[in-house]
Amino acid sequence: MIYIDGGVCAPKGFLASGISCGIRKSNKKDLALIVSQKKAAAAGVYTKNLVKGAPIIVTQKNIADGYARAIIVNSGNANTCNANGIEIAEGMCRLVESFTDVNSSDVIVASTGVIGQKLSLEPIERGMPSLVEGLGDNSIDAATAIMTTDTAIKEVALEFCLGGKQVRIGAIAKGSGMIHPDMATMLVFVTTDAAISPEMLQKALTDTIQDTFNMISIDRDTSTNDTMVVLANGMAENACIVSEGEDFEVFKAALTEISLKLSRLVAKDGEGATKLLECTVSGAKSKEDAKKIAKSVICSTLLKCAMFGSDANWGRVLCAIGYSGAQVDVNKVAVSFKSEAGEVSVCSNGGGIDFSEEKAKEVLSCGEIIIDVSLGDGEACATAFGCDLTYDYVKINGDYRS
Amino acid sequence: MIYIDGGVCAPKGFLASGISCGIRKSNKKDLALIVSQKKAAAAGVYTKNLVKGAPIIVTQKNIADGYARAIIVNSGNANTCNANGIEIAEGMCRLVESFTDVNSSDVIVASTGVIGQKLSLEPIERGMPSLVEGLGDNSIDAATAIMTTDTAIKEVALEFCLGGKQVRIGAIAKGSGMIHPDMATMLVFVTTDAAISPEMLQKALTDTIQDTFNMISIDRDTSTNDTMVVLANGMAENACIVSEGEDFEVFKAALTEISLKLSRLVAKDGEGATKLLECTVSGAKSKEDAKKIAKSVICSTLLKCAMFGSDANWGRVLCAIGYSGAQVDVNKVAVSFKSEAGEVSVCSNGGGIDFSEEKAKEVLSCGEIIIDVSLGDGEACATAFGCDLTYDYVKINGDYRS
Repeated sequence: MIYIDGGVCAPKGFLASGISCGIRKSNKKDLALIVSQKKAAAAGVYTKNLVKGAPIIVTQKNIADGYARAIIVNSGNANTCNANGIEIAEGMCRLVESFTDVNSSDVIVASTGVIGQKLSLEPIERGMPSLVEGLGDNSIDAATAIMTTDTAIKEVALEFCLGGKQVRIGAIAKGSGMIHPDMATMLVFVTTDAAISPEMLQKALTDTIQDTFNMISIDRDTSTNDTMVVLANGMAENACIVSEGEDFEVFKAALTEISLKLSRLVAKDGEGATKLLECTVSGAKSKEDAKKIAKSVICSTLLKCAMFGSDANWGRVLCAIGYSGAQVDVNKVAVSFKSEAGEVSVCSNGGGIDFSEEKAKEVLSCGEIIIDVSLGDGEACATAFGCDLTYDYVKINGDYRS
Repeated sequence: MIYIDGGVCAPKGFLASGISCGIRKSNKKDLALIVSQKKAAAAGVYTKNLVKGAPIIVTQKNIADGYARAIIVNSGNANTCNANGIEIAEGMCRLVESFTDVNSSDVIVASTGVIGQKLSLEPIERGMPSLVEGLGDNSIDAATAIMTTDTAIKEVALEFCLGGKQVRIGAIAKGSGMIHPDMATMLVFVTTDAAISPEMLQKALTDTIQDTFNMISIDRDTSTNDTMVVLANGMAENACIVSEGEDFEVFKAALTEISLKLSRLVAKDGEGATKLLECTVSGAKSKEDAKKIAKSVICSTLLKCAMFGSDANWGRVLCAIGYSGAQVDVNKVAVSFKSEAGEVSVCSNGGGIDFSEEKAKEVLSCGEIIIDVSLGDGEACATAFGCDLTYDYVKINGDYRS
C-alpha cells in the first residue's frame, strides 16, 4: 500500500473541479464537482444529529439504489434549517444534469457553512459552465472549494493491489469546527476504481468510521451536515467484491488507512488549533471502555487548554478518565506524554510520580502530542484524535457569521 | 422568604473563619473553618467522578451517622490522586479536634486546587491557632479562603418562617473551572438553624440539586472534588422536621432558592466568563428531555463563543438541540434571545425568521442572556446555567499550575 498524489482524481475515471461562484462574499472557491466516467457503487454515512442538512435527505434518496456518478458541494452556506432547503438541494442535482450527462438522481449533494441562511441557486447556476469546463485532474481545486475555516487542504490517495489488479483510492475532506462526528465527519468524499458491490462498500464504510472519523473531536459539537460518501466505479477491473473475504479485508484496510490519515489531518487543523492531540488507551476491559476514555480525554476543555500551554497537568487526564463513564480501576492507571521530543511518564498507579517539568515542557511544545493512558485492566485499546483549545478558536467562533 | 446578610454565619450558632496559612505561594487566604455550637444534622452530595478526592472519602465516613459540627477546607491543592491523601484529610480533621472542642469524627473536610500534588499538614497545623482565634461572624473570610480562580465571593443567606419560628439558612460556594457538576458543584457549604432529621435533610438536598447545581456547566469537566454539604443545628427551635409535609416543603423551597441563586453566581463567574447564559426550555415531552436540551445548548462550545462575540448565530442552538439525545420534532422548535435590553425571536418552526441584527447585537451585549427554546411538543420545562467561552478561559487554563 503506497501513498500517491492526485486525491479524488487518482483512481481511474474520476474528474474534479472547484471554482468560486459567489456564494461567499470573498472570492474563495465555494463550489466543487466530482464526476465518475462510469456509474459507481455508492455508500454514505451521515450525521446522527436530529437537525439534518437538507442535502443529506436528498443524497440519501439519490443513493438509495446503491449507485451514483457525481458529487456537487458548496461551502459558505449549510443549507440547513431552511424552509426550501430540499428544493435547493434537488435544484443543485438538476443543475448537474443540465450541464453534464449525469442523471440528477445519480448526484450526491452536500453543503457546509452557516446554518439557517437562505441559499440561492442563482450563483450556482451562473457558475455551472466554468465548473463543468474545469473538470479534470483537479482534486486540489475541489478540496479547496469545500474548505470553510480550514487552514489546510485535506487530500490523500493510496495505491494497492487487489486480486492481482492495481487499485487506487482517493479522498478529500473538510473539518475545522463543529466537529464531533457521530457517523462521519463534516464532509469526506472518497473515490476508488475498485470493483465492489454497493452492499459491501457500505459495510466497509460503516466498519471503518468507528475507529477513524468517529474518534475525532474538535469541540464536541456534532454537526448537522456530517457526510462521508464513497464512490467505487470498478474501472480497476479487479474481480468485483461481493462478499467478505481476503479482497474485502484488503479494500477495507486501504479505506481505513486513508480514513486514519484524514482523521489526523482534520484533528490537526481543528479551528484555531496549534497541536494535534492523540489519546492512546490500552489495557481496557473492553473496546467500548477504551473508546469512552480516549474520547473523554481528548474532549476535556481543561486538558485542551493545558496542552495549548504545554502544561503537563496530568490531573486533568485522570479527571476526564474518571467521568468518562467507563469502568476503570483508577488505582492502576498510568499516564505518559509523548512527542518527537521524547516521552515523560507523569502518573503511575493512579498517583503522581516525580518528573522533570523542563523535559515535560519540551515534549509538550511539539506539534503532535500523544497522551498515553495505560489501564492495566485488560487487553482492549483505542485511539482518539483532537486538538488544543486556543485563543484563535474563541476568536474564529466569536464572530463566525461576519 | 427574604435575603439577609451573613452567609453561613447568618443562622444561629454558626461561626466561621478564613486565613492564609501558606498552602498557596501567594498570600491569598487558603484555609477556612466553619463550626456549629451544637452538633448538627448533616447531609452531603458528592461528585460521581470515579477519581474522587481523598477528602470526600473521609467526609462520607464522618457524616455516616448523620451528624457533624465543623467544616475545614483548604484551597490551592485538591488532595486528589495523592498516595497519602486519606491520611492528610484525616490529619486535617484531627487538627480541628486538637484546637477546638469538636471531635475529629464530627468534621467535614474538603480541598480544592491542583490534582496530584502532595499536600503537607505543616502549613495547616501552623495556621490552626489563628484560624480558630478568627472564628466569628466571618462568613466572607471563609468564602474568600475557598476561592481558586473565582473572581467573586459567592455567599448568600435567607430568612423564612417554619412552624411559627424564624429560621435562617446560609451558604458559601466556589466554582470557576472544572465545573459540570454531576451531584453537586465544586464546593458548597450550607448552614441552617432549622431543626430537621438527617434523613429529611439528605432528601431535601438530593431533591434540590437536580434542578440547581446539576444544571450548571462551565466546561463539561466534572470535577473530582465536587462536594455540597448542609449542616442543620436546630437552634431555631422549630418542631423538628422528621417527615414529608408542609414544613419539609417550606424548608426545601428555601434550600432551592439559595441553591438557584448560588448556581447563577457560579455560572456567571465561570473561568474567564463575561456573561451568564441561561437556557430555558419549555414545551418538552418530558422533564428529562427538557434537561438534556437545556444542558446541551449551554454546553455547546460554538454557542458559548458566539455569545462571547454577541453573535445571534442561532443555527448553533438548533445544532445542539439536534445532538442532545432528546426526542424532539425539529420542525416545531422556536428560539429567542432575551436580556435586559429586550427580546429578539430568531427561529420559528425550525427555520430562520427575519430579525434585526442590530437589535440582536444589543440584546446579546448584556451580561445576562437567556436563550429561550420552545419545543411546542409537551408541557415539561427546564433551565440550565452556563457562561460564555472567552480568551481568558484559555489563558487561565493554559498555565493553571504556575
